[in-house]
Amino acid sequence: MSVTAAKGFRAAGIAAGIKQNGNPDLALVVNDGPRRAAAGVFTANRVKAAPVLWSEQAMKSGQVSAVVLNSGGANACTGPKGFQDTHATAEKAGEALGRGAIEVAVCSTGLIGVLLPMDKLLPGIDTAAAQLSEHGGEKAAIAIKTTDTVHKTSVATGAGWTVGGMAKGAGMLAPGLATMLVVITTDADVDDATLDQALRAATKVTFDRVDSDGCMSTNDTVLLLSSGASGITPEYDAFAEAVRQVCDDLGRQLIGDAEGASKDIKIEVVGAASEADAVEVGRSIARNNLLKCALHGEDPNWGRVLSAIGTTSAVFEPDQLNVAINGVWVCKNGSVGEDRDLVDMRYREVHIVADLAAGTETATIWTNDLTADYVHENSAYSS
Amino acid sequence: MSVTAAKGFRAAGIAAGIKQNGNPDLALVVNDGPRRAAAGVFTANRVKAAPVLWSEQAMKSGQVSAVVLNSGGANACTGPKGFQDTHATAEKAGEALGRGAIEVAVCSTGLIGVLLPMDKLLPGIDTAAAQLSEHGGEKAAIAIKTTDTVHKTSVATGAGWTVGGMAKGAGMLAPGLATMLVVITTDADVDDATLDQALRAATKVTFDRVDSDGCMSTNDTVLLLSSGASGITPEYDAFAEAVRQVCDDLGRQLIGDAEGASKDIKIEVVGAASEADAVEVGRSIARNNLLKCALHGEDPNWGRVLSAIGTTSAVFEPDQLNVAINGVWVCKNGSVGEDRDLVDMRYREVHIVADLAAGTETATIWTNDLTADYVHENSAYSS
Repeated sequence: MSVTAAKGFRAAGIAAGIKQNGNPDLALVVNDGPRRAAAGVFTANRVKAAPVLWSEQAMKSGQVSAVVLNSGGANACTGPKGFQDTHATAEKAGEALGRGAIEVAVCSTGLIGVLLPMDKLLPGIDTAAAQLSEHGGEKAAIAIKTTDTVHKTSVATGAGWTVGGMAKGAGMLAPGLATMLVVITTDADVDDATLDQALRAATKVTFDRVDSDGCMSTNDTVLLLSSGASGITPEYDAFAEAVRQVCDDLGRQLIGDAEGASKDIKIEVVGAASEADAVEVGRSIARNNLLKCALHGEDPNWGRVLSAIGTTSAVFEPDQLNVAINGVWVCKNGSVGEDRDLVDMRYREVHIVADLAAGTETATIWTNDLTADYVHENSAYSS
Repeated sequence: MSVTAAKGFRAAGIAAGIKQNGNPDLALVVNDGPRRAAAGVFTANRVKAAPVLWSEQAMKSGQVSAVVLNSGGANACTGPKGFQDTHATAEKAGEALGRGAIEVAVCSTGLIGVLLPMDKLLPGIDTAAAQLSEHGGEKAAIAIKTTDTVHKTSVATGAGWTVGGMAKGAGMLAPGLATMLVVITTDADVDDATLDQALRAATKVTFDRVDSDGCMSTNDTVLLLSSGASGITPEYDAFAEAVRQVCDDLGRQLIGDAEGASKDIKIEVVGAASEADAVEVGRSIARNNLLKCALHGEDPNWGRVLSAIGTTSAVFEPDQLNVAINGVWVCKNGSVGEDRDLVDMRYREVHIVADLAAGTETATIWTNDLTADYVHENSAYSS
């Protein structure tokens, strides 16, 4: 399903030889219209990979109707040559598709600081273009995997229209978009401005609230393309909700497949004076390595939650904080609450509620535990 | 040597039974004068342990001349009862020493969210007071250990005067002072205001730049006491430098003994537009879990250094960044530099130089790698 669930799109995924192990590493997504609208959201990291710099420019042209994605190399920190390579990639895809280079967004993921093998990548684009298909969404999703153990796709449907997408990402997952590439397509007949509005609204409460390991990537990209092929222009709220659902589902899949993780941790901050306070507190808890280790050890260590809250600038009084772990209020009024032995920590999902008792705003951040497997994977895999 | 290296101080360290394993857990440090000056710096965490709240008040009284320290329990997040316990501890020590409670600072370290066994702690104070000795510094340093594998002491000497200290800390080591208790003593004849100035200047560039795991504790305390027993009032600069040396040495010992660490990582940020920029960048690098894993795997992964720099607000241009690891400039002008295979990563100490090429300011942050042992220790030990 993936990016070809919506009408008006074709996709392909092939092994171009960029990855030395021969796994699929090149994907192509093409919008056949009739509309060719697009929106994009990119990493907030100031060290941006060449494909991010290129795609930001392409998006400003208002003409993006195709995406080339490669795994096996991030093309980040590669200087002018890296940017030339991205440009050559867009030109080659444009030629193969009969379009201008500026109509082609480029996404790359993999090792930072290494040039891409263009002698493999460019011929691969021809191969992929020849295999474009209305059923190619799943192959495309598979071709963008790096350390992902599974490929990630999602679909939401409205009355006669569809939103579908694919994502990759398993590490360097953090704020302002995780190390992840996401392409979402729709056949709803929606213009650039509406796509942009719906995409920003959705990413703000989904991908931006996924924080697996606090590390922000140089390559994060989320693209939303509309073909208008359904001929239907939905109500904004219904369309935005469908986009949010797909983003939320894909974000949840990223957390579920995070490198080395054994727990998916939902941190729900309630009683905040502002949404910004709730997000700041949620993120501080999500990034506390000691807490992440404790949860890995199935230890409902609420002291580490309070210690993390205490480092924020949010409105709260220390002696009014309450914390529940898996439904047990282990901390009340900043001190010992219900018996921590009542907390059942056996399952993969852990639910923390942090009540700041300072207002009515809330936010939910998803994170993972910190495990020896995370250390092993990231001390052995150079990315 | 430790806190009794300087004249005019006695100390003791005993096993009061606070720790269930019978290890030493209670220390006493007493200033016999003739001067009884003191200064203190406390955690920036807004969730402060009862002993921190008490000691901050005591320090404001301007009369602190003794310190009780216990391991085996942090007395943090323990509500009004926890504060009463700290107060009772100060009163008991005051009685034993013939002083007022307000003259006694209290420091605690160990598990958060558990009340201290006062039936063990209070009698222990009498035992410790009976064992006070001018040679008790080392025993005191041993009694404040938690997960520390070694006790930590340091001494610096001037012309006829001495600064000596002890520290504990092995985890929850981060900014605005690490989880650590430090007591420094001097027989230099120095008043409260000068002690305060020298202590704040020293901690700002030493303990505040130790960031082992990004986790800020509820109990961090650094105290500096002067007995004036040498009869000498040194020049400020010489005295401040001696205090800085002792703080730097103790901070370095904390990093060297950090939980589960296999590397001590010196992050030197140069070419910064401001010292604040240099500190922000150094701390961002120090807290990047992916980099910390890579260094554990002896992988000179400079891409993760750039990725961390890119998340800061410091002044820099991405295409002018340079990074050296152990003397090899693996990244030049934001792109591939010298051959990364030239980097020798076999030793415990790793030296990263991050050149922002934006000015002349510098800062050095010390951190550790992220290891499976860190995960094991912190998923098994509830602290």
